[in-house]
Amino acid sequence: MGGSLAAACRKKFPKAYITGISRDTQALRFAKKKGWIHESYSKFGKGDRLFFRNTRPNPARFSNLVILCTPVETFPKYLTLLDKFFRPGTLVTDVGSVKGEILNWCAKRRFKNIQFVGAHPVAGSHLRGIKAARPDLYEQGFTFVVKAEKGDRLGNPSVPFFQVKKFWEKICPRVIETSADEHDKIVSAVSHLPHAAAVALILSISAKYLKYAGAGFFDTTRIAAGHPSIWLPIFLANRKNMIKDLKIFERTLTYFRSFLEKGQKRSLLKMLEGASTRRHKLS
Amino acid sequence: MGGSLAAACRKKFPKAYITGISRDTQALRFAKKKGWIHESYSKFGKGDRLFFRNTRPNPARFSNLVILCTPVETFPKYLTLLDKFFRPGTLVTDVGSVKGEILNWCAKRRFKNIQFVGAHPVAGSHLRGIKAARPDLYEQGFTFVVKAEKGDRLGNPSVPFFQVKKFWEKICPRVIETSADEHDKIVSAVSHLPHAAAVALILSISAKYLKYAGAGFFDTTRIAAGHPSIWLPIFLANRKNMIKDLKIFERTLTYFRSFLEKGQKRSLLKMLEGASTRRHKLS
Repeated sequence: MGGSLAAACRKKFPKAYITGISRDTQALRFAKKKGWIHESYSKFGKGDRLFFRNTRPNPARFSNLVILCTPVETFPKYLTLLDKFFRPGTLVTDVGSVKGEILNWCAKRRFKNIQFVGAHPVAGSHLRGIKAARPDLYEQGFTFVVKAEKGDRLGNPSVPFFQVKKFWEKICPRVIETSADEHDKIVSAVSHLPHAAAVALILSISAKYLKYAGAGFFDTTRIAAGHPSIWLPIFLANRKNMIKDLKIFERTLTYFRSFLEKGQKRSLLKMLEGASTRRHKLS
Repeated sequence: MGGSLAAACRKKFPKAYITGISRDTQALRFAKKKGWIHESYSKFGKGDRLFFRNTRPNPARFSNLVILCTPVETFPKYLTLLDKFFRPGTLVTDVGSVKGEILNWCAKRRFKNIQFVGAHPVAGSHLRGIKAARPDLYEQGFTFVVKAEKGDRLGNPSVPFFQVKKFWEKICPRVIETSADEHDKIVSAVSHLPHAAAVALILSISAKYLKYAGAGFFDTTRIAAGHPSIWLPIFLANRKNMIKDLKIFERTLTYFRSFLEKGQKRSLLKMLEGASTRRHKLS
């Protein structure tokens, strides 16, 4: 996500000065060679080391906008650091897949300097790593931008929200305003539940049969290849919605099975027709 | 399936005389125009009407090999008809997705004329209809050919089996010999269960969230678009294996959910890692 985002920022904001921060020094070198970032740092280190490298203040701390592209469970750590060292009014947004947990945390935390507006771009590639990065990756998808629950003193969405929304609109033309709560329900249904289903499916069949898998099985289980260290924190952060959705899914499967057991052809056919109609509408 | 198969036969057996029989007269016209079939009939009608059209015996009845490409639940009807009117020793094979039920039926039925050897080509396209037909469709996939349970009097697979196997080897280079029982277990795991999972998944989420579906959801639910009238008979014919596999799948999902409920990170991570490793090995 970070690589494509830097590339997109470079393309859409040609005057912006872009700093890349990543542990992956190869990725940083690649992004620099491509001209996606002007400057790079390999440590978002312990304490303030990132911001005072060789006793020289890290110029990244004077940024106008920071975009967190790390796994969701690292956000509290990094937001705390950012708030400590960045200038008052610094905008911070992210690309995380779950919003409720971190925004609840932010609400309690009350930042001194940074202004955090959550976002979640949904882009069309399952490829990962800097080599798969593309400046136009985000143009095909859409981005959720999370409205503050209460807004400013007049109840209007806050200025930071509009600024961050404007940024995302440049990167990805389709921006969807949503609450953190609604966002998490949506992604639980269309992203996290399907991931759990694919994981359970590929684990449920006998390993000796995997060699007979065809295109249908490949499609149905593709997302199960996703990186466990990315997905575990996502599942945990969206636990409440996931549990609800998993229960509904299990119940639907049980219906299907009991119709099969009882030979209730008409009920089965109804399910198949409902699913087929829904799926045809999507494509 | 029928269209691509006719095209493949034409390519691989240039000297063969090919007759197409289908209710879909447009498909027949298309196949004739393409040169995939020499002759066509639109009725596999009631009684013997197909075989005596306008009081003239239908020349299809002198075929050396008949390939049934109709839904599995129609096989008893058509095999009975074929046995009634075709010459003794006529080879019959099929492309049906379930084998046990029909072969049990055949074993009880004892044909007078035809010799049925079940087959199931697994090809790589989810497209349907004559327009999607391609002569090379079967070259990428593989074909199950079902060995007779007991073979001939010496216990060897019968001559018809070898002849039908030879036919399929020309069409599709990878032929897998299997028993009807094993075949049905395999396809239940890698094809029918994933279909049921995709159906249940797309029915489990709120319709209002479907518009937010991304690439992952599209992949996971793609096969749910399959034609209900094709899939219902498949599920019913492979009911026993399906019920078993559905139970295992439901249990795996319940494990996943209970790990999430109890916050058992290590167990969840193990599941995600197992699934990811399995899926990476496939592609």
